[in-house]
Amino acid sequence: MPNPTAAMLVIGDEILSGRTRDANMHHLAGELTRAGITLAEVRIVSDEPQAIIGAVQALSAAHDTLFTSGGIGPTHDDITADCIAAAFGTHIDVREDARALLAAHYAKTGSDLNAARLRMARIPDGATLIDNPVSVAPGFTLRNVHVMAGVPAVFQAMVATVLATLTGGDPLVSKTLRIERGEGDIAGPLGELAATYPDLSIGSYPFQKDGKFGANIVIRGTDGAMVDTALAALETRFPG
Amino acid sequence: MPNPTAAMLVIGDEILSGRTRDANMHHLAGELTRAGITLAEVRIVSDEPQAIIGAVQALSAAHDTLFTSGGIGPTHDDITADCIAAAFGTHIDVREDARALLAAHYAKTGSDLNAARLRMARIPDGATLIDNPVSVAPGFTLRNVHVMAGVPAVFQAMVATVLATLTGGDPLVSKTLRIERGEGDIAGPLGELAATYPDLSIGSYPFQKDGKFGANIVIRGTDGAMVDTALAALETRFPG
Repeated sequence: MPNPTAAMLVIGDEILSGRTRDANMHHLAGELTRAGITLAEVRIVSDEPQAIIGAVQALSAAHDTLFTSGGIGPTHDDITADCIAAAFGTHIDVREDARALLAAHYAKTGSDLNAARLRMARIPDGATLIDNPVSVAPGFTLRNVHVMAGVPAVFQAMVATVLATLTGGDPLVSKTLRIERGEGDIAGPLGELAATYPDLSIGSYPFQKDGKFGANIVIRGTDGAMVDTALAALETRFPG
Repeated sequence: MPNPTAAMLVIGDEILSGRTRDANMHHLAGELTRAGITLAEVRIVSDEPQAIIGAVQALSAAHDTLFTSGGIGPTHDDITADCIAAAFGTHIDVREDARALLAAHYAKTGSDLNAARLRMARIPDGATLIDNPVSVAPGFTLRNVHVMAGVPAVFQAMVATVLATLTGGDPLVSKTLRIERGEGDIAGPLGELAATYPDLSIGSYPFQKDGKFGANIVIRGTDGAMVDTALAALETRFPG
């Protein structure tokens, strides 16, 4: 059985304007690979309702799981929760369980649970809260969509919580062979290898550094023995 | 008139598996912002024909310009050029102008222009070549799609070439105010400011570092005087 697939939706003008470099995608990609879940697609959209709603509907329908990052804070540009609700036609309002979490936190820190902060308790009906051990304001899971914060420390904590609840497939085994030859010399034999092992993913990533050039050939698959056999065949063809 | 919009399509399993951290998106985002072109959406897809073709069709139709990155080398997983041709129903084969570029290069370096390397001369009918000053194999422009290499040095050179040919709108002016208050205290006044200036994009990016916390408020717009006025209003409300 093929591994389950996931998509990620990054919400935020600050990535698209080049102001901020996204860190969450790389983190999630690595965690999913370790969990045996294939990250099949990532989209980055701006803080526009139609862009977010459209992407949520498309990606949640096309994949087993969708992870979102960003747009769940207290400011006017934090519209993710409302867009998720709209994408599924679900009612959304301040929910008592989320409000209680925030009220307890702000009582302790002496801050006011004002209207802006209350926005962070807007949770769609039927959603399950995702714990935020860093700054309390929760994420949530609605259907197959996991809605998480954009702040990397919070995002990473939420990913850990969610991944513990998901069933992955077999973890992906990945082996790399560095070949110091032009990619054009490697390509022919590599194509034959890929044709021989259709169940493996074989990628070629060229490098050029310190006057040396070549390609790192990465062989990935869930069958570790098959990965080793293909790697050995490649090593025979291009002895180190 | 609103600025023209662009999308980016990153093609490559190595990003989705977490093996490689994409660098091209951040570069393009900054260059487009400087050029007065709004990067509206980014998608990252795997080396699968249907995923690439579908994304090319959707993004090139929805935006003024589409930039792609990756998948134009000589190996079996380099299928971008054929997918672009398929997306538009255009014929593709080894083209004489591209073949001549490669032949001259490999004659000089003493390498063989073999079948694999010839793949890099596969260019759709009607496309214009994009110069590759680093490693010769060209990118190309077909309709509103600019097809570029994934290797960052080559990608950046190609972006510079392409941007010189595009007409941007007014460059975006961006000013930042650092406010050392909880986002929940800033959110109310910030929402009012955003409502007062609908032509500006006002974003709030929280930070927590070295025991201090607060948010960087970024005000962006093409009218520099309006950006300054809004910034001054915010400074008055939250004096440093």
